Amino acid sequence: MELPYHFRDDSLAALALTHRSVGKPNNERMEFLGDALLGAIVAEMLYETHPKATEGEMSRLRAQLVNGQALASLARELELGDQLKLGSGELKSGGFRRDSILADAFEALVAAVYLDGGFAACRETVRTLFTDRVAALPRSSKDAKTRLQEWLQANGWPLPQYELVATEGEDHARIFDVNCVVAEPMAITAPGRGSSRRLAEQDAAEIALNRLLESREGA
Amino acid sequence: MELPYHFRDDSLAALALTHRSVGKPNNERMEFLGDALLGAIVAEMLYETHPKATEGEMSRLRAQLVNGQALASLARELELGDQLKLGSGELKSGGFRRDSILADAFEALVAAVYLDGGFAACRETVRTLFTDRVAALPRSSKDAKTRLQEWLQANGWPLPQYELVATEGEDHARIFDVNCVVAEPMAITAPGRGSSRRLAEQDAAEIALNRLLESREGA
Repeated sequence: MELPYHFRDDSLAALALTHRSVGKPNNERMEFLGDALLGAIVAEMLYETHPKATEGEMSRLRAQLVNGQALASLARELELGDQLKLGSGELKSGGFRRDSILADAFEALVAAVYLDGGFAACRETVRTLFTDRVAALPRSSKDAKTRLQEWLQANGWPLPQYELVATEGEDHARIFDVNCVVAEPMAITAPGRGSSRRLAEQDAAEIALNRLLESREGA
Repeated sequence: MELPYHFRDDSLAALALTHRSVGKPNNERMEFLGDALLGAIVAEMLYETHPKATEGEMSRLRAQLVNGQALASLARELELGDQLKLGSGELKSGGFRRDSILADAFEALVAAVYLDGGFAACRETVRTLFTDRVAALPRSSKDAKTRLQEWLQANGWPLPQYELVATEGEDHARIFDVNCVVAEPMAITAPGRGSSRRLAEQDAAEIALNRLLESREGA
């Protein structure tokens, strides 16, 4: 696969593919910029394609798309390994095959496209490279209550209870407050709010599920 | 201070200022996108203004500019607290004064500008808001060996030794490999490389300093 971008200034592409083992200048600074640009452009793709996903869900999906292994695999498809400039030590030890070096070069290349062609060109390039990967993500078409229930069942834990805590406001603009309670050993009480009891329960289930997933990631 | 941007679609600005305590829709998804955009635009500012900074230095500088407290302070300058939409619980407990809620609203507002006016408008807005803050950052005009030495002295630790490890290549294109060794209790050996012994030592000092700063942050 070829990079879907043609450089005006080839020296930017060359710098992006120059590993620090060569000395200075190298691609480390570009990697910082490219990582940030990639994060923003992929964030926007997820924002558009996953209109129901919460912040936490989008953040997890992005981590699936933009991690060292995933970027190294993209770098291999683009055959960046053959184009890398490495110091002799890294050359001998096969650095052009290493995930971290390939992923860094890919990120630097994203910055090089930005510096060469501007944001629109960079965004277009990244979107082209990630379209299939984004499309292959789970759509999580299931609602939050279903996902929470399935996750708890899969782990052999007790199912959640939903409690109406309060209602506020006039009849035509009522707000419902509920709690989603997951018993020991999870012992989580997550608040939800919405214009119907159903929406409030979905909201609470989503918060409960995010907390459970975060506590597992932290473990 | 006013936001240096005029919205075509005011409903985007209103959503950016709607806290999750109100129910759905709220600004949480926008906050995800805004955080990513802010990271990229500030990364570019640092890339331009700190041409000698390493990836690690730029990353630390960005963390100084884009953290909850710093963004909350920007949100206060923009008087976002008065415009926030909060649920009654957060209203009573003074949520409009809380750093985390203000910082989240600021990030969401950055996304709202992007969605309303595109990347150029968003970039211009963020750059205007951050120009003075970026200019106030330490320029780190001192070279890496000096900064390493000062940092070790300030902490009462032993000074580094530089060792020539190897030279490679022909006379006209020689490459120097050195180690920067910091004794116990740090016990760090950082490799550096460059086209002169001086440049290789600077390279090694920079790596040593970054490792020391990272290990302190991790502690």
